[in-house]
Amino acid sequence: MEAYPMNGGNGPNSYANNSFLQRFFVDWSKSMIDEAIADYLDIQICPSSNTFRIADLGCSAGPNTFIAMQNIIEAIDRKYREFEGLSGSTPEFHVYFNDHASNDFNTLFVTLPPEKPYFAAGVPGSFHTRLFPKGTLHVVYSSLSIQWLSHVPKEVLDIDSPAYNKGRIHYTNARQEVFEAYSAQYAKDIEAFLHARAEEVVCGGLVVLIVPAIPDESPPSQLHTQSMFDILGSCLMDMAKTGIMEEAEVDSFNLPAYSTTSRELKNLVERNGCFNIERIVDILPQENKMRPSVQTLSDHFRAALEGVIKSHFGFDEHVLDLLFQHLYPQKIEDTFASLTTYMEKTTTLFVILKRK
Amino acid sequence: MEAYPMNGGNGPNSYANNSFLQRFFVDWSKSMIDEAIADYLDIQICPSSNTFRIADLGCSAGPNTFIAMQNIIEAIDRKYREFEGLSGSTPEFHVYFNDHASNDFNTLFVTLPPEKPYFAAGVPGSFHTRLFPKGTLHVVYSSLSIQWLSHVPKEVLDIDSPAYNKGRIHYTNARQEVFEAYSAQYAKDIEAFLHARAEEVVCGGLVVLIVPAIPDESPPSQLHTQSMFDILGSCLMDMAKTGIMEEAEVDSFNLPAYSTTSRELKNLVERNGCFNIERIVDILPQENKMRPSVQTLSDHFRAALEGVIKSHFGFDEHVLDLLFQHLYPQKIEDTFASLTTYMEKTTTLFVILKRK
Repeated sequence: MEAYPMNGGNGPNSYANNSFLQRFFVDWSKSMIDEAIADYLDIQICPSSNTFRIADLGCSAGPNTFIAMQNIIEAIDRKYREFEGLSGSTPEFHVYFNDHASNDFNTLFVTLPPEKPYFAAGVPGSFHTRLFPKGTLHVVYSSLSIQWLSHVPKEVLDIDSPAYNKGRIHYTNARQEVFEAYSAQYAKDIEAFLHARAEEVVCGGLVVLIVPAIPDESPPSQLHTQSMFDILGSCLMDMAKTGIMEEAEVDSFNLPAYSTTSRELKNLVERNGCFNIERIVDILPQENKMRPSVQTLSDHFRAALEGVIKSHFGFDEHVLDLLFQHLYPQKIEDTFASLTTYMEKTTTLFVILKRK
Repeated sequence: MEAYPMNGGNGPNSYANNSFLQRFFVDWSKSMIDEAIADYLDIQICPSSNTFRIADLGCSAGPNTFIAMQNIIEAIDRKYREFEGLSGSTPEFHVYFNDHASNDFNTLFVTLPPEKPYFAAGVPGSFHTRLFPKGTLHVVYSSLSIQWLSHVPKEVLDIDSPAYNKGRIHYTNARQEVFEAYSAQYAKDIEAFLHARAEEVVCGGLVVLIVPAIPDESPPSQLHTQSMFDILGSCLMDMAKTGIMEEAEVDSFNLPAYSTTSRELKNLVERNGCFNIERIVDILPQENKMRPSVQTLSDHFRAALEGVIKSHFGFDEHVLDLLFQHLYPQKIEDTFASLTTYMEKTTTLFVILKRK
């Protein structure tokens, strides 16, 4: 399994300082989570004398994960207080922050809110595998994470395969076989994710997912993230043409990310069979009032992708700066008529699953 | 609360590469732990369908903590298998690795044994506070850690106090008031430690402690660690005299560590009242066959103390090298007639407590 976590530390290129666009989804989902917990969480799954366990899978660094955990706990707490009436007895909370072992847990730990209403633990490992003992979690949350594949599908790197993805770094505008290889890998990974969670989550426990997606009938190339990946690939090809690296190095590089559709995700959950789908709705892009500059967009992609790019191409800071401060923002600007158009192409699913 | 964890990373001065002397206690305690678990652990505190939870408090980095956790799990596993007969049903294990938030958890996580028989989590925070929800731990382990105080007693830094510790960095050979200030702080810290554990450990759960100590009737100055600290203080005074820093900087520096006696620790556990003392025995120093070179000793102290020294004096690598590669090993050599004599002065307690 490959692991390229977000950029660590607190520096100018860190995820911690380049994840405020993702914050929209944290804020937007707050009321949806309040509702979901009010409607679907049966607090009898955890008597108030026990420990209520929550996990954020693919948490990276703060502050988004801390805000999300706080929101979830407030909603659960409210539910207990209502149920228990004025006695107000609520369980103690244990929050597990999960990401790859190579994630920057040191930064996560020293930035934990000092007055947090929970006990905190970090859990290293891929969420495509088992991370927790059986039947121990009550709520699982994962925001903008399960689009990451466990690895790039092998076929797209195999020069003899019809899915070989020459000259591109993603399936956007590539041959259908490339898309199919990604789609098959996503199906396997989601099955692994759900299979592990089915073991870990108690009956009646909830799984809250925020998932980058494309509209059910739209061609994959129309999604912004793919377009952004495609533009990045085109920058890398330009760099290869100037001799910074070989074109073959771009051919052998693909981004392990996939955007599903609502229908596809539903099918995968149903095929797994362990969860009921309580909600699956679009987070409307129009509601996202953030209008980042192209440089901000580029910085956000850098915080997420620098690790995997550095590891493959061996770029130093100078070349990474050239890519993310010049070539990439310039090409984004040239491609999109306006950033509003770009933002309106975004689609994201808010999903509530309940363990049967 | 102050936090100066062991040196992080995998470099030449890291704790990971300078903790093989501590390994003796891990190996030596293995058979004692096997026995203690066989004799004192009632496996009915955790039905085999539940999760068995173990915490290592003050774990620092591997490999010692990984070996210790493996030993404990093997002993527990054996007990379940014997009890359950051939059906061999054992619980799943959740191991919590705890240390200060500024400990190098990143190194800990990437060096976790790949084939470990447990789910792993890291828990950031001081073991003088609550770290876990109520009644969730079955076995707590802490090796060579509870000698660290939550902070240096204030009086020894107060120029107007009779406990002001001028020209020294520890209570060895200092005024009685200095020793008493340290002793009072240790009593407070152990009470805080036991109070927190009393909440976290289930009834019947075990606490395994490996504790640096001095024989009941010996004066504090006869213990090796204190002598080692005293020698280090003397090196720092020498450095001040050559003008590397002011003597006042040494006056305001004290090491937050204390070696108890068996009797004192017993009294503190009894005063707390939540635990039965099942065993408290000396780990015999004669059995320790390791005969490290003075440089190895100096390197081990560096891995543990560099953080607190750097933070106080602001030394760069060059000055730290001067101290730990020249002055300190030379003075250790000059002080001890032979390292055998040094090693024979070590005393360590192996303690088993059971939650009432």
